[in-house]
Amino acid sequence: MDVRIALDVMGGDFLAIPNLQGAFTAVEKSLSEGRNLKVYLCGPKDRVLAALPEAASDPSIPPEFKIDLPRFEKYLSDGVLEIVNCTQVVDMAESPSAAVRGKKDSSLAKAFHLVKENKAGAMISAGNSGAVMAYGVSLLGRIEDVKRPAILCHFPSKSGVTVLLDAGANVDCTAEHLFQFAAMGLTYFRTVFEKTDVKVALMNIGEEETKGNEVVKATHQILKEKLKENYFGFVEGRDLMNGKVDVIVCDGFVGNVILKTAEGVASTVKSILKEELSKNPIWGLGAWLAKGGFMAMKNKLDYREYGAAPLIGLNGLGLVAHGSSDGKAIHNAIRIAEKYVLQDLIGKMRNVFEPYRVNPVEVASSVK
Amino acid sequence: MDVRIALDVMGGDFLAIPNLQGAFTAVEKSLSEGRNLKVYLCGPKDRVLAALPEAASDPSIPPEFKIDLPRFEKYLSDGVLEIVNCTQVVDMAESPSAAVRGKKDSSLAKAFHLVKENKAGAMISAGNSGAVMAYGVSLLGRIEDVKRPAILCHFPSKSGVTVLLDAGANVDCTAEHLFQFAAMGLTYFRTVFEKTDVKVALMNIGEEETKGNEVVKATHQILKEKLKENYFGFVEGRDLMNGKVDVIVCDGFVGNVILKTAEGVASTVKSILKEELSKNPIWGLGAWLAKGGFMAMKNKLDYREYGAAPLIGLNGLGLVAHGSSDGKAIHNAIRIAEKYVLQDLIGKMRNVFEPYRVNPVEVASSVK
Repeated sequence: MDVRIALDVMGGDFLAIPNLQGAFTAVEKSLSEGRNLKVYLCGPKDRVLAALPEAASDPSIPPEFKIDLPRFEKYLSDGVLEIVNCTQVVDMAESPSAAVRGKKDSSLAKAFHLVKENKAGAMISAGNSGAVMAYGVSLLGRIEDVKRPAILCHFPSKSGVTVLLDAGANVDCTAEHLFQFAAMGLTYFRTVFEKTDVKVALMNIGEEETKGNEVVKATHQILKEKLKENYFGFVEGRDLMNGKVDVIVCDGFVGNVILKTAEGVASTVKSILKEELSKNPIWGLGAWLAKGGFMAMKNKLDYREYGAAPLIGLNGLGLVAHGSSDGKAIHNAIRIAEKYVLQDLIGKMRNVFEPYRVNPVEVASSVK
Repeated sequence: MDVRIALDVMGGDFLAIPNLQGAFTAVEKSLSEGRNLKVYLCGPKDRVLAALPEAASDPSIPPEFKIDLPRFEKYLSDGVLEIVNCTQVVDMAESPSAAVRGKKDSSLAKAFHLVKENKAGAMISAGNSGAVMAYGVSLLGRIEDVKRPAILCHFPSKSGVTVLLDAGANVDCTAEHLFQFAAMGLTYFRTVFEKTDVKVALMNIGEEETKGNEVVKATHQILKEKLKENYFGFVEGRDLMNGKVDVIVCDGFVGNVILKTAEGVASTVKSILKEELSKNPIWGLGAWLAKGGFMAMKNKLDYREYGAAPLIGLNGLGLVAHGSSDGKAIHNAIRIAEKYVLQDLIGKMRNVFEPYRVNPVEVASSVK
């Protein structure tokens, strides 16, 4: 099966460079593994081509993510890579609603249109995440009965990975929204990680039933009733990365604060350690000897391993990558999007609420 | 000036042992520095005395926190330490409101009564934090015009320390509550850290004015108007420990999730690093050489440095310490409580809203 991915080449803090690197290496890797992957490069053609030499000569990128220009050009002529020209680009700080209204020919709009027209199985952007969601809702719409699409984030954990939603799309949520996030998170984890006994939990400030605000308490009752054995109960902030559960549900305000707190704390811990180790030459020598261990830790905590966060609940696959994504992060984002398409994630998401519907036959037979 | 502190000796996961160790060493240290400190040991007398030999012989405690039994007994006979007998103890998992109603002679109640009767300048408990707050509100009441007392937490940061409130007392907050937390946080930071240009910020999911939920947006307008040059604007989760601001304000749900996420992430980063370093003997040797640097980092991130979180807005000083506090944490909690008393923190808190009141004289003169 051919998988086609639409990439917003102008998305992210570094614009075309990491996107071109990621697209090239993802295509190379899939070909070497015997699969056909095509990446649509959505962006103003002149700017995309102008960035290509710099993307290819970039000294900061590891060898495995380097662009080989002749092969890149061959992929363009074979159609494995295809530039989809447009005239506009959405800025990182632009108002999402203004962008959707005013920039109908942006690289972001192009990428979503390819998904809408079934030319691509998924789209990816490292751009303005609010704008990605706004274009997604406007161009793809929501899956039937989904009230609010959510951003799903991956966290490395002791058990491998824990996902959290919503990571920032919806600042105010009702219990119904949170139930929908839980159902979508459960389907996501089952599909993507092929695990049957998925544990879904609700973020709270304690584990007792009396803890939490009114929305959390109401959601707890719904999840107990609807998710049954897949519902774990409450978890706290300290359970984010300890592998206790697979899916954590919260509103987008709390989720975004968690995501950024985790990033900030990990970075502060690392920088304090680095500073302290530099204060004594013996410690410095020790740190140099232990360098491989530090690298291994860094890789385990690397947000680039999961490259992108899917927008769950859109009627089509859209992924938002970290604004500071480099070639490796974009490469991984394309690889995970390819996996989603092969797993038919969107097909499964379209049936996400089936298990929770009251079956009319059952109702009828119980009435007899 | 004599400072007297009331300690709930039965508070915390380890009950009397760390409390006795902390009380003894705090008293020793203050005496050695030429100050008179008295600690009331609130708890059932037989249980307190029964724990004393174990607290003194505890092999897990560093030498500087060891109890010398003859000196401990001398302090008891001199009245530097005084056991305040009671018949009840509040459990860690007990319902706060049920405890307040049902356990009028608990060690927690005794400690608050000593503050209420002006026999102690502050009370400390490492027990059930919900119960500490509930007894505090019931026995001391709130400072005039304070709608909701809050839990204030200290985070180590690049600039030294950042405080956050509310860390979990109030799960649902209005803009007025958040404004009050901001005003109280400002007075706290000015008084305790003697800094004039304190920067107060509001936790949000972005720095732009359009970001956030309705309560956060409304609070932003109030803080701009009332706090003026002391108001920094919005911060995000990643700013918790980077030293950008001094005081961070949020509701108790978000604050508690932040506190526990930060603890969990720091602990996961450390345990992943430890695990990776053990995988290769050279890395292990490096880590052994760098041990001093790791210890220095651990000390910088140690929650025990600030030993306890004050309950801000109560009409009297109450501090809640971490449930897993050891002798060092309790020692530090007593030291910080002593500092609060010497700085007249509660006196300053009683005037916390003065700067924001419309001055009747000014109003009158502007009407003329």
